[in-house]
Amino acid sequence: MNSITKTELYTLIEEKNNTKLKQLFASVPIIDIAETLNEISDPKFILYVFKLCNSDDTAELFSFLNIEKQTNLLELFSDKDMVSLLASSFADDLVDTFNELPANLTTRILKTADPSIRSEINALLKYSPSSAGSIMTTEYVTLPKQFTLKEALHKIRDIGKDKETIYASFVVDDKRKLIGTITIEDILFSNDTQLVQDVMKTTFISCNVHDDKEGVAQLFKRYDLSVMPVLNDTKHLIGIITIDDIVDVIEEEASEDIQKMAKLLPMDEDYKTISPWYIAKKSIPWLILLLVLGALSGFILNQFEGAFQSIAILAAFIPMLMDTGGNAGNQSATLITRAIALNEIQTSDFLYILKKESVVAIMVGFIVGIFSFLWINTLILVGFLSFQSISILYSGAWWFELLKISSTVSITLTASIMIAKIVGGILPMIAIKLKKDPAVMASPFVTTIVDIAALLIYFLLANSFFNLF
Amino acid sequence: MNSITKTELYTLIEEKNNTKLKQLFASVPIIDIAETLNEISDPKFILYVFKLCNSDDTAELFSFLNIEKQTNLLELFSDKDMVSLLASSFADDLVDTFNELPANLTTRILKTADPSIRSEINALLKYSPSSAGSIMTTEYVTLPKQFTLKEALHKIRDIGKDKETIYASFVVDDKRKLIGTITIEDILFSNDTQLVQDVMKTTFISCNVHDDKEGVAQLFKRYDLSVMPVLNDTKHLIGIITIDDIVDVIEEEASEDIQKMAKLLPMDEDYKTISPWYIAKKSIPWLILLLVLGALSGFILNQFEGAFQSIAILAAFIPMLMDTGGNAGNQSATLITRAIALNEIQTSDFLYILKKESVVAIMVGFIVGIFSFLWINTLILVGFLSFQSISILYSGAWWFELLKISSTVSITLTASIMIAKIVGGILPMIAIKLKKDPAVMASPFVTTIVDIAALLIYFLLANSFFNLF
Repeated sequence: MNSITKTELYTLIEEKNNTKLKQLFASVPIIDIAETLNEISDPKFILYVFKLCNSDDTAELFSFLNIEKQTNLLELFSDKDMVSLLASSFADDLVDTFNELPANLTTRILKTADPSIRSEINALLKYSPSSAGSIMTTEYVTLPKQFTLKEALHKIRDIGKDKETIYASFVVDDKRKLIGTITIEDILFSNDTQLVQDVMKTTFISCNVHDDKEGVAQLFKRYDLSVMPVLNDTKHLIGIITIDDIVDVIEEEASEDIQKMAKLLPMDEDYKTISPWYIAKKSIPWLILLLVLGALSGFILNQFEGAFQSIAILAAFIPMLMDTGGNAGNQSATLITRAIALNEIQTSDFLYILKKESVVAIMVGFIVGIFSFLWINTLILVGFLSFQSISILYSGAWWFELLKISSTVSITLTASIMIAKIVGGILPMIAIKLKKDPAVMASPFVTTIVDIAALLIYFLLANSFFNLF
Repeated sequence: MNSITKTELYTLIEEKNNTKLKQLFASVPIIDIAETLNEISDPKFILYVFKLCNSDDTAELFSFLNIEKQTNLLELFSDKDMVSLLASSFADDLVDTFNELPANLTTRILKTADPSIRSEINALLKYSPSSAGSIMTTEYVTLPKQFTLKEALHKIRDIGKDKETIYASFVVDDKRKLIGTITIEDILFSNDTQLVQDVMKTTFISCNVHDDKEGVAQLFKRYDLSVMPVLNDTKHLIGIITIDDIVDVIEEEASEDIQKMAKLLPMDEDYKTISPWYIAKKSIPWLILLLVLGALSGFILNQFEGAFQSIAILAAFIPMLMDTGGNAGNQSATLITRAIALNEIQTSDFLYILKKESVVAIMVGFIVGIFSFLWINTLILVGFLSFQSISILYSGAWWFELLKISSTVSITLTASIMIAKIVGGILPMIAIKLKKDPAVMASPFVTTIVDIAALLIYFLLANSFFNLF
């Protein structure tokens, strides 16, 4: 694969070496040229390259430029340039740009655009960004059912070039109701003289224009689709969605889930294009929520102040207990949230999940608990942690006091891992029942519930072992 | 969209209502039928449905059954059944099944399979599961460059039906070296009499069979591909990868990242098919690591035992400090890890990222710090937390002691958020430089470093405010 550096491109433009530049368009993928142009600051240079580019490729080149360069270019464009760019662009790409352009430019585009393009843009603009409508395109091939396959192929060859895909064509009746779909394979592999209505599939997966686009992505994955028709509320065909747009939805969805799990508000921009203040705004709300909820564990610790005054070593294990318990809970919450997102389980599986997570909870709790018992004894025996203060206060044998400490910690850990795993498994299901996003809701509540449970168990155990209060 | 319940299917099979069953195959997507069959326990019932199914659909139906049902069916199959299933399946689907079948069945399949199928299966089996080879298929159309487009279309119509895609065909020389690609659109939209070599694209994106499949997925996304040729080390064409397999790779990769962030070892199985012990095994290693690293914060707390004995309220804020600091660090680590995974930034952007994260760190640190100062004062003033013990030990005015406590906590919080954000931003870059997985490495180290830094700052501040030691 060839590529091009900024300096090479710059030199070619300065030399006005049009022959070499045109060769470049033939050998380097458009997106790579666009990304190099994105690094060039003088918009006139970009315009120069743009005008040299083969008219078939300008729309693609434009769609890969960042919004700043797109704005620069549009500002330099004559009305004629604009008309020709609009004519060769896909309406769905235009809409993506449109949402971010300054208002004076959008007005100018809508004014110069051909009426049919204008109405397409306006139609696409009105759908919510999370809907199927926002990712559909209105450029596809329709066929009447009474065509022969020969006529169908003829029509596809005739008008297909401007369409987003010719892989599938859509069979509509005279009221534009979708009655079947037919792939290019169906057409090529059947007899020319057969009718579209005899070859087309009348069972097909479609979606409503207002459906959630993440749900549509699930259908693409489940049924291995490459294109899906989009219907309005009266079942009329108004657009299609192609797999390349679905790949972006899946990627976006995954990024969002990951950000929510990291307690960041979702952001859908590229790291390099966002400002520090934007990142800060997305980070702060969760941190403040954690701080507010932290008052609860503070309250419990506050009630047991006396325990630290008698046995200060108890405090040494608090971060360990919080970290391990919180993470055990988040493991289960994540596993269940992910399985729900991938449709592996439903909320109706509540009892099944509760049972399974309980078994996991017992296994993990006991194994990590036993390990922690050995680990804490080791830390104290090798002198890494000291428990002087106990030996001063209590007169029992030192090894007996040691066992009381390590048992308090490891029993608390075992119990809090078990509670964490079960709470972590159940909370996402409850979130869904309450129609809340499990990725957002589960994590802070798991942390808080587990923190509180762990601290209560810790001090009650310590009290019964050491008679603190 | 139609669907079918287990009871309906069961009744139709028991009634041997073949007409209705066949209608079902025409109206319900194969995957939905397969999932209903997966719930039926008697394999003979599945065999019955299987034999009724149109021979074009059996391979697809088989590929959607779970491994238990696949094994059951293969055991009931006659050699003839097996040969016909193998002949209609795509080699890449067979290999997926193959990896999980009991050895006696794989031997039997390889024995009954046609030699050409056998060699395809064997070839695909030898690639690592993370390589491009593992997701490629060997079923595609090749064309010689001297064909006219008419001859090319004729060949595609002739042999394309058994291929995974006819969207693109691959132009190879007589040594099977790939010299160009041509799409069905190129063929349909150009003049019949033109030669393949004049229409084909000679610049195309390809991959090596040993390339990492996640890198291949990046190329699909970047260049909006629907199919990519796979070459061996001598640049000969040995397979193709289609976008439907890439969708699975992207989904899998996202699941893996999410699991790693939740401190779970990656698992690629469906939640319902894994055993509790498998989940436990994936959960325990991280929890034990956290426990082991927890010794460090335990050590610091242990050194400052005296502080708790004098001012027990200090302990009340430890969980709050740990939770907020740890999360602030994980936010940055996740943001940077994700941006690297999506190729938005490279490790060469180190200084850029350091600068940006530092600005974010200062913004978030100050805002959350000021909020925490107000919040802690409020909690104490309304009596939710009490600091009795201080007023006993120190003789200053109560509001002055209150301000000392709330300043200690909020300054610690501000500093630890700043440290956390910068460490969280840098650690993923260091992980990549060390060729470690940033999603795995960053999180436990961020937590540990931030815990230690926060505790040290906390006690040093407390000491300078209260002269504890």
